[in-house]
Amino acid sequence: MPTVDFWYEFASTYSYPAAMRVGALAAARGVALNWRPFLLGPIFAARGMMDSPFNLNPAKGRYMWRDLERICARLALPLRRPEPFPQNSLLAARTALALEDARRPEFSRAVYAAEFGAGEPIAERATIAGVLEAMGLNAGDILERATSAPVKDKLRSETALAERLGIFGAPNLVTADGEIFWGNDRLEEGLDWALALAG
Amino acid sequence: MPTVDFWYEFASTYSYPAAMRVGALAAARGVALNWRPFLLGPIFAARGMMDSPFNLNPAKGRYMWRDLERICARLALPLRRPEPFPQNSLLAARTALALEDARRPEFSRAVYAAEFGAGEPIAERATIAGVLEAMGLNAGDILERATSAPVKDKLRSETALAERLGIFGAPNLVTADGEIFWGNDRLEEGLDWALALAG
Repeated sequence: MPTVDFWYEFASTYSYPAAMRVGALAAARGVALNWRPFLLGPIFAARGMMDSPFNLNPAKGRYMWRDLERICARLALPLRRPEPFPQNSLLAARTALALEDARRPEFSRAVYAAEFGAGEPIAERATIAGVLEAMGLNAGDILERATSAPVKDKLRSETALAERLGIFGAPNLVTADGEIFWGNDRLEEGLDWALALAG
Repeated sequence: MPTVDFWYEFASTYSYPAAMRVGALAAARGVALNWRPFLLGPIFAARGMMDSPFNLNPAKGRYMWRDLERICARLALPLRRPEPFPQNSLLAARTALALEDARRPEFSRAVYAAEFGAGEPIAERATIAGVLEAMGLNAGDILERATSAPVKDKLRSETALAERLGIFGAPNLVTADGEIFWGNDRLEEGLDWALALAG
């Protein structure tokens, strides 16, 4: 079964519809997904960008929110802008990496639903704990692991790898041959590429 | 018949496949197009960006060229990167506005084919003259009109209008209700929006 890496950032608006769509799209094609959260902040900061490009460029930001409204309306996904935007995604990303692989997609979708569907503050421990508890997990144990040195190191090394691969935004699919497919708009193309590669 | 404004920039890479596709897509839906060339340079410069975002961010630039290769391969469009990139698009945009409306789409497609299909320098008068002559037009007359005060003013006012509308990149479709659809990826959505609006 071909496997594709899904690189996503919890603060990223277009990662929200992508995370909600990608599992079913991959399953329909018989493609396996490797869910890889990372941080865009350090990649932006290395280029001197200290805020979201959607805040730095107000016209682009206004467009993005309207485009996202249209996308979410088509997908029947609720959309509520979290304040502040972007949310600090460090705790969510660490927690995703602290989980076993099998629970990461469900956790990630639930975080996006809280953040962009309900406008909840994902930087807050209570929000993440609520997501974990709704999954039937022990929030205290997992949040302790999420701030352990191995998990912190893992998120740093994943982010460094994303940058080395050529990633500059989110979400992305990256296929076995190193092709990058950036954006919610490229999910189908990336999965089809992985299938053709395996064929 | 619903009419949609197609705002494009001759230096813009994604405007190339968009210009090649949009006419047929609009015709198939019974939507009329208003071809409106403008300049992104002044809009970027007003935000302190003195070069293409694809040059300012090398990882994004590498991705764009690869993405454009994949898009052009799917559309069976030739692709050759012009040097330098971006090309100065001032003469092409003025010439497009100097033409009567009915010839602008053909001229614009031919400029894109020269620039991104054959890698020719569209900043040079000889390239633009060659395009006009291949259309059976008098290049000398049109190039003289292209640098007249009314045409220069028209390009300035079109660019200022684009910025007021909220345009920050190219290409775009803008529908009668002011919705912006940015990018080669949004042509179908923008045309469908115009149809629904008229229905």
